[in-house]
Parts: sequence; structure tokens; C-alpha cells
Amino acid sequence: MGRPIDPALFDDNERQAAVAEHRHFLDVGPLDCECGKTLPNVTVAYETWGALNAERSNAILVCHALSGDSHAVGWWDRIVGPDRAIDTEKYFVIGTNCLGGCQGTTGPNSPHPDGGLWGPRFPLVTIGDMVEAQMRLVRALGIEALLGACGGSMGGMQALEWSLRSPGSVKRVWMTGSARAHDAMQIAFNEIGREAIMRDPKWRGGDYPPDDPPRDGLAVARMVGHLSYLSHASFESKFARRYQDKQAPEWTLGTEFEVESYLSYQADKFTKRFDPNSYLVLTRALDYYERSSLVGSQSEYLFTSFTSDWLYPTRQSQELLRLAQEAGCKAEHREIDLPYGHDAFLLDSEEQGRAAAAFFAR
Amino acid sequence: MGRPIDPALFDDNERQAAVAEHRHFLDVGPLDCECGKTLPNVTVAYETWGALNAERSNAILVCHALSGDSHAVGWWDRIVGPDRAIDTEKYFVIGTNCLGGCQGTTGPNSPHPDGGLWGPRFPLVTIGDMVEAQMRLVRALGIEALLGACGGSMGGMQALEWSLRSPGSVKRVWMTGSARAHDAMQIAFNEIGREAIMRDPKWRGGDYPPDDPPRDGLAVARMVGHLSYLSHASFESKFARRYQDKQAPEWTLGTEFEVESYLSYQADKFTKRFDPNSYLVLTRALDYYERSSLVGSQSEYLFTSFTSDWLYPTRQSQELLRLAQEAGCKAEHREIDLPYGHDAFLLDSEEQGRAAAAFFAR
Repeated sequence: MGRPIDPALFDDNERQAAVAEHRHFLDVGPLDCECGKTLPNVTVAYETWGALNAERSNAILVCHALSGDSHAVGWWDRIVGPDRAIDTEKYFVIGTNCLGGCQGTTGPNSPHPDGGLWGPRFPLVTIGDMVEAQMRLVRALGIEALLGACGGSMGGMQALEWSLRSPGSVKRVWMTGSARAHDAMQIAFNEIGREAIMRDPKWRGGDYPPDDPPRDGLAVARMVGHLSYLSHASFESKFARRYQDKQAPEWTLGTEFEVESYLSYQADKFTKRFDPNSYLVLTRALDYYERSSLVGSQSEYLFTSFTSDWLYPTRQSQELLRLAQEAGCKAEHREIDLPYGHDAFLLDSEEQGRAAAAFFAR
Repeated sequence: MGRPIDPALFDDNERQAAVAEHRHFLDVGPLDCECGKTLPNVTVAYETWGALNAERSNAILVCHALSGDSHAVGWWDRIVGPDRAIDTEKYFVIGTNCLGGCQGTTGPNSPHPDGGLWGPRFPLVTIGDMVEAQMRLVRALGIEALLGACGGSMGGMQALEWSLRSPGSVKRVWMTGSARAHDAMQIAFNEIGREAIMRDPKWRGGDYPPDDPPRDGLAVARMVGHLSYLSHASFESKFARRYQDKQAPEWTLGTEFEVESYLSYQADKFTKRFDPNSYLVLTRALDYYERSSLVGSQSEYLFTSFTSDWLYPTRQSQELLRLAQEAGCKAEHREIDLPYGHDAFLLDSEEQGRAAAAFFAR
């Protein structure tokens, strides 16, 4: 059961050791994907915090965005933990790595039954397929219905999908910085990342050796992503026009500005922990996702969005609010005025934290 | 005098034949660049339209942005031409390819005196160096002072530099969708493009053979640029979530959505007409440029910006207005409400056209 964790994927050894220590694996059986392909066995990597109450009614599933993993108390430490909005002393909190990911759950860098890795043979899984795997895990944990499902960006889509795929399976859904579907520009951002990877000759149609992946393509993809997660204001307050370790230009195509050094450093770090084929699969899942109605849902909804998030602009949360109301669901939307761009959903413990805490405590 | 035009650079044969027919070349001698390097001879490719009046007082210089050329009646046909805002029947209009470019003016793909091409030996020229070359051309045409200099984006920076480098050399300066300096996020956008090119193994440190350039890197750079020139609204009205020649996903990493097809097509087209080393040099020039005061200028200014231009946001034009006023210059700023993003400066003949026509006709 389960699969070994490849230490080569990890760049931050201490943190990853902490993750690995708490990470569990569950085989949830074969999965017929929406695309028509079947995965003969799916393993889900997950972590839990807190205790399930006697009624089994205090479970909250935290779904990660594109580059996250099961370690919700890590990447979302401002929201998930003791005394946080999603209080691990009050709730039984579940984090999973999503299907198609590369942090323990079955994905393109998992072993294929025929030997080797799945690589480009891995199906283009959907948000619905991810949720199907999560549902099996949650049932295996003895939970009939979640108190809550939540997440930002792609995590928000998964939370939404829970409420639609199996009405009654989740009481409260919180989506932050998310959408019912990507618009053309969001698809474009993802497509540029995919092009950067697939145009890297080292991609080799997806059949690259694990120790020689298309790192440069993935690095460029990450830079494009990173840029879209910030804002003019956050870039400006972090870097402005400061030169890197110098006061004036050195007339080089190498690093001149601090912002350049930051982008490269972050991108190269990312390539040590992320699988390029996973990046392709997960961005495709994001782009395919589309829900045009919430009719049939029995959930309550909280939508939060941020004024400076130009990647998932507020109007997409307003659209979700309208759809929830049209479906007769209790729903609210809060727009939060913070300058951090899309990353605000990771950074804001205050306003979204208060709203989420109140929402789940109702 | 001059240098041959490489037809391999051209993807649109008819248009380029029209350009080549009207293009002239002038050697303007050696140029000591700001970076400390010297170009032993600079050739400027230029075109003119209309007639210089007897007083030589009706000349307007049109400066192009990153990917433009001397053919202003082509890329800016909504603004430059008979009966347009910059009326070629009234003004003597000059278009040049900028220094460091790849459409006839000396740049990285020009012959080096030692043989071969300049390639990575080409100096990192600045906006000021570009303007120096233009000034020599304008003087050689017998013009002591321009009636106007104008341009969008990088073209706007050149127009601004005219007024500061040699006060009195230009009466009226119109900058549209431009800035006094790039902020950190604008540098980041350019840096991602540069990284995409330089991480392409075919870049070879800049010493690539002309028939085998780093096309994939340049294509990704162009996609990043293209994306930054549009807006959610323009992407949405062009493509929405439409699939390419199909109604449903085909579950492929190849083209699924129309917007993907568009991005790739435009990017690959761009690689047939643009030199990757030029892309590096020109984006560096953009990022280096910084003017913190307009004191000393004798010019009048018109600044236009667009509500949906998130790459060169309105506040950068407001900042220019403030600097012009602080320098005691006559200046005005018009913000124009159009949904096309940064590309609006290329597309809007109406509002900015009227403002510019009135400005130059004063």
C-alpha cells in the first residue's frame, strides 16, 4: 500500500521530513476517469489533524491549489492550525494530495503497472476525478458527510465539486480566490506554462527520465505562474527597481534587478519538488473545469475574493454567489481589500480567517 | 551604405515587400553607447511620409514599441496616414527602426566588423542610445527641431527621452500607454521572456546560427508578452471558453481551446520575423530606462492611458503628468475607457486619435 516518497523531489528537507512523517497513504481502488481511461489503482496521500468527534460531524477537507500538497498546516499555516480559522483543536482536518499530483497521490510520476512511470500515459484527470478519490478516502475514514470543504484557486473548485457531485456530502463550502470555470485569459496563462514545458527538448513527449526532467521549461512555467499570483503593488513593495547587490546596472543579461533574482530562485527551487507532467495534468484539469449551475446542491457557501487578485477577479466570486442563490442555497460573498494579488488567499489570516471561522462555526 | 534585408525574417511577404520598397538606410557613424561600448558604425532604417514644409517645422517622429519597425503606417495604421490623427498629408512623418532592433537598423543580427554577426557582443543599448541615433537621422534630413515625437510603450519612452536629452529638439511629445520607468512587475514580465529565450539550449549564449535560432524560447517569450498586452475582457470577447474546431474536450495536451491555438500561432509567426538577441537587448533597454524628473524640458506633453491597460496602468501616466507639471511644462493626461488592455494604444483611433490630432495641431 502506498508508494515511496522520492527525496529528490524535495528542496526543503526539514519541512518535507515533517510532511513525510505525518503522511499516510490509502489505496482507494480503480478509478474510471472522466476522459474514459481507467486507473487500475489509486493511492491517496493524506494527513489529518485534530480528532473526529463521536458524531463524526466535525471533519473539514482542505483542498490544495496547483502547487500544494497534503500538508495544509504548512502551505496554509495562516488558516489551518491550533486557534486558526480552521482550528485543528476543534475540527478534524484532512489534507490530501490531489489525483495527478506529485506529492504521494497517484500521478504521472507514479509507477505504471507495466513497469516504468505513467508519464505521458497518465490520464488527463479532472477536478471531478480528484474529488472522487477524496470521497473514497473520506468514506474510508468513517465520515458520511463533511462539515466543510474548502480551498483557494484549484482547491476551491474541488470544494465546489464536492457539493455538486454528491449533494449532502458536504454541509459548508468555502471557496477563496476561485471560480466556476477558467476564462480565456486564465487558460492562456496555463497554456503558456504548458508550452514552456512541452517546448523544452528535455520533455521528450513526456517520457523524460526522472533524473533529467525538463527543468528549464518547468522553471519558466513557474515564473509565469508566480507572476500571475502577485500584483503590481506586491512586486513594488518587495522589489521596486532595486538592483541586486549593486547600485547601478552592470550591463549584463545576467541578474540585474532583485526581482529577477527572486523569480529565478523561486522557479529553480520549484523544479526540485515538482514534476513537469503533473504541472501539465493539473493545469489541464483547471482549464477543463466548468460548472454553469449549482442546482441540486444542498450546501451553504462562502465565497471570498481579493481586490488585487487580477488572476481570479472578484467578478468570478460574484458569479458563484449568483449561481448559489439561483440554486436556492444560502451563500455569501466577501470581497477583501488587500494588495497581495491572488496570493492573498494564502496570506490573509485576518479578514478571510474571521469570515471562514464564523462560517464553519455556525 | 545600409545593409541587405534578410527575407527570412519576414513572414508576411506582401507587407514586408511594401516596407522594403519604402525603406531607406542612413549611416550615422560611430556611437558611444551608455554602457561604455562603442558601435563603430550605426545604420538607421527609416521611412518617411508626406512632405517637409519650407520652414521644416512639420516633422513628427513616430517611435515603435518592442516588436515594431519603421513602418508606422502599418503597425499604427489607425493613427498614422492620410486623414489620420498624424496626418501624412499635413505632416512630414518619420518612422525608424530602433537601435538594437532587427528590421534594418544596426542590431545584434547586423554584421560585426570582425566578420560574423554581432550576436551576444552587441552592446546593451539604452533608450538614450536609440534616441541619439534618431537625432542624427533627423539632423541629416535637415530638420533642426521636430514638431512632435510620439509612441506607445517603449516608443513613448523614446519620445520622452527626446525632450530631455536635447531640450528644444522637439516641441510636442505624446506618450501613450507608457511610463517614466518600468516597475518591478513590468521588469518581471520582460525577465520571463528573457529567461525563456536564454534557457532554450538553442540560444547557445547568443551565438546561434541565423538559420537555427532559439525559436521555442522566443515563442514562449512572445506568448508572455502577448498575454500582457491584452485583458480579461479582450481575451473573453475573442475566445471565451470555445474549443478549437470541436464542441467538447478531446483529452489532449495538444490544442483544445481556441485561445491556445491563437497564442501558438501568433508566437510562431513572431519567431519568423524577430531576432531573439534583439528581444533580449530591447527588453533590457526598457527595464533600464528611468527618468525621475522632467526639469529642463522645453516640450509640451500629452499623456494617454487606458482603463484596461494593467501592464502600463494609468497611474504611470498620472506620474508623468505630475513630473511634467513640476518641471513647469504644459501637459495634459487623458484616461480612455476601452477594454483592449495595453493593445488599446494600437487599436484606438477615436479618442486618443482626437486628442493627439488636437495636440499636434495646436
